[in-house]
Amino acid sequence: MPNFAFHIMRTDGRARAGIAATPHGAFHTPAFMPVGTRGTVKAMTPRELRELGAEIVLSNTFHLMLRPGDELIRDLGGLHRFMAWDGPILTDSGGFQVFSLADLSKITEEGVTFRSPIDGAYHFLSPEKAMQVQNNLGPDIMMAFDECIPHDCSPEQVKERTERTLRWILRSRSAHARPTEQWLFGIVQGGTIPELRAWSAQRTTEIEFDGYALGGLAVGESKEAMLGAIEVAEPYLPKDRPRYLMGVGTPEDLIQAIDRGIDMFDCVIPTRNARNGRIYTSRGVLNIKNAAYARDPSPLDPECDCPTCLQYSLAYLRHLFVCNEILAARLHTTHNLHYFLNLLRAGHAAIMEGRWPQFRDDVLQRLRTASSAPDDESQPPASVE
Amino acid sequence: MPNFAFHIMRTDGRARAGIAATPHGAFHTPAFMPVGTRGTVKAMTPRELRELGAEIVLSNTFHLMLRPGDELIRDLGGLHRFMAWDGPILTDSGGFQVFSLADLSKITEEGVTFRSPIDGAYHFLSPEKAMQVQNNLGPDIMMAFDECIPHDCSPEQVKERTERTLRWILRSRSAHARPTEQWLFGIVQGGTIPELRAWSAQRTTEIEFDGYALGGLAVGESKEAMLGAIEVAEPYLPKDRPRYLMGVGTPEDLIQAIDRGIDMFDCVIPTRNARNGRIYTSRGVLNIKNAAYARDPSPLDPECDCPTCLQYSLAYLRHLFVCNEILAARLHTTHNLHYFLNLLRAGHAAIMEGRWPQFRDDVLQRLRTASSAPDDESQPPASVE
Repeated sequence: MPNFAFHIMRTDGRARAGIAATPHGAFHTPAFMPVGTRGTVKAMTPRELRELGAEIVLSNTFHLMLRPGDELIRDLGGLHRFMAWDGPILTDSGGFQVFSLADLSKITEEGVTFRSPIDGAYHFLSPEKAMQVQNNLGPDIMMAFDECIPHDCSPEQVKERTERTLRWILRSRSAHARPTEQWLFGIVQGGTIPELRAWSAQRTTEIEFDGYALGGLAVGESKEAMLGAIEVAEPYLPKDRPRYLMGVGTPEDLIQAIDRGIDMFDCVIPTRNARNGRIYTSRGVLNIKNAAYARDPSPLDPECDCPTCLQYSLAYLRHLFVCNEILAARLHTTHNLHYFLNLLRAGHAAIMEGRWPQFRDDVLQRLRTASSAPDDESQPPASVE
Repeated sequence: MPNFAFHIMRTDGRARAGIAATPHGAFHTPAFMPVGTRGTVKAMTPRELRELGAEIVLSNTFHLMLRPGDELIRDLGGLHRFMAWDGPILTDSGGFQVFSLADLSKITEEGVTFRSPIDGAYHFLSPEKAMQVQNNLGPDIMMAFDECIPHDCSPEQVKERTERTLRWILRSRSAHARPTEQWLFGIVQGGTIPELRAWSAQRTTEIEFDGYALGGLAVGESKEAMLGAIEVAEPYLPKDRPRYLMGVGTPEDLIQAIDRGIDMFDCVIPTRNARNGRIYTSRGVLNIKNAAYARDPSPLDPECDCPTCLQYSLAYLRHLFVCNEILAARLHTTHNLHYFLNLLRAGHAAIMEGRWPQFRDDVLQRLRTASSAPDDESQPPASVE
């Protein structure tokens, strides 16, 4: 795999600081991947993402295969050229969205038949199809096709779907047509049942993948259950491969997961909340609609050096938001992404410098004491931005 | 007036190339002013406007006085600081919007009582109030308060309102509290009745203003009537003062007006049409929704060197537009503003180099032969973005 490499440069406890090389450049871990569902991180240009220090972005197979279509993107030179982002891209397999967004028509061992939410047309997704679509899109990192396991499944259902996921990721691996050009990650399922999560981790890591993801978490279970599932799976994950916790999460989630050995994350929280006026700051989450900000000349966060905080007042940002101006979405997204990317950059530095425990405790302490606006982060939105 | 200066550097026929100096920097004429209704040129940052070569922007008194309020903006350091644009700003007087957008309650010689379209609250706007609001906002150029004269008024109504406008702009001049810090422009009315337009131009220019605007045009009258009104008024306009044609217009309108001695323009056409997917190119206006672009790897305009055309394909831009992505509004606005700003930059250069007639004829020829998407420019939208 000459185009790819992954090195852990330093560990501190279970926390890991690493670097991954891909055909489109390197990214440092722990890494937060902004979500670019339809081939655009909402409201942002690639240049701005670069300037914020984003090194890798995620895009969604489900959305792109339906519109504009993966073959169209392949014919136009692949997703990098299409969206004008020349850095690393990871795409999911479509599994999560097909189970959470689509009108499911039929699930068999072969795959899933569903109707498009755009036009009602029938589509089929299977391990083989998910690989073909991702081979067409051309991301640096592809995800195996797994079955989404809702939080409220019975233990029997969790077992059945976890076992099927194992068969599906094996078929994914066999169907991957460009293994020297694109990494493929396997996915561990098992819900929050320790034995099943451990079984899935063990069996999944017996299969050679370029990285391993934990799926089916941050879907409504408790924080303790999520962290427990990570702890159960982690010992099985090879130390020399990247580990990706899908769809997570809040700043606290990220710190807790890094502390348990996770390297990669994606979540719509910073971008979606930005568009809804929920702003992450060193003093907690603020709601820009708050009338108290109407005449406030201060920045969103006096400790922040993002382009939004260096130039604009709370009063102006609130005005833009109240007027439903596009610039509000832009400036708030810029700030929130900076917050998340900066948090993980600082985490990387703390691990490299051997002061992760202190950093972790400081961050968690600040997050817990921060005055927070009424908050919906305990139920993070599904990563379907 | 030490902070201000206006110099015509060269003329070619009636076309003029000049430069205006303001407390916030210079702008070249002919000048196109992007419209920033609520203190933001929709979808754009000040940095991007600078990079596109915008030298002056317009903002709307009516919108800002209602929300967030001119006193609030004053208390926060003025409109420049509020919107983080450190270049020249021109604000209108609110007259056009109060007559076209508000629920008019009462018009008297004193002023206009109206209800806010935001919350129904009663407000009063008069020459004195319009000056006070603009003194608070702090633009480099203020507009006198005039009465909007709809296209379909009777000659008697045109006469009555033109006469009242003259009284109102005189009161505006008297009420201007910061004459050394802010330019004030008078406004010529008179509809499309040659005698009234000439009378208004003569009487208005007998009053000392820092510049003179032609109002009440591009409101539904024919192109010929609009150009005729410019031709009737132009001889009265002092050659050493900037001349501003309010709310105009299409690329052809701009060329025709420059050819008749106009220096400054504002219009929502480039920005509003961009958000609606109507794109100005060297080959005519295209509609990005057109299915023919779905797989097209070409840029919007192969002759354009704007950031959008240098990076993105028609296929990608159409995809973003179809998905209602914010980035579509951004990239299309970038392109359309570049088109308008570039057109006037090229016009300035042509005048400076003594080749205006050739430039004018070439541009008009290209505009007329360009294949055009079904077009609504013959009725440009009111400048209320």
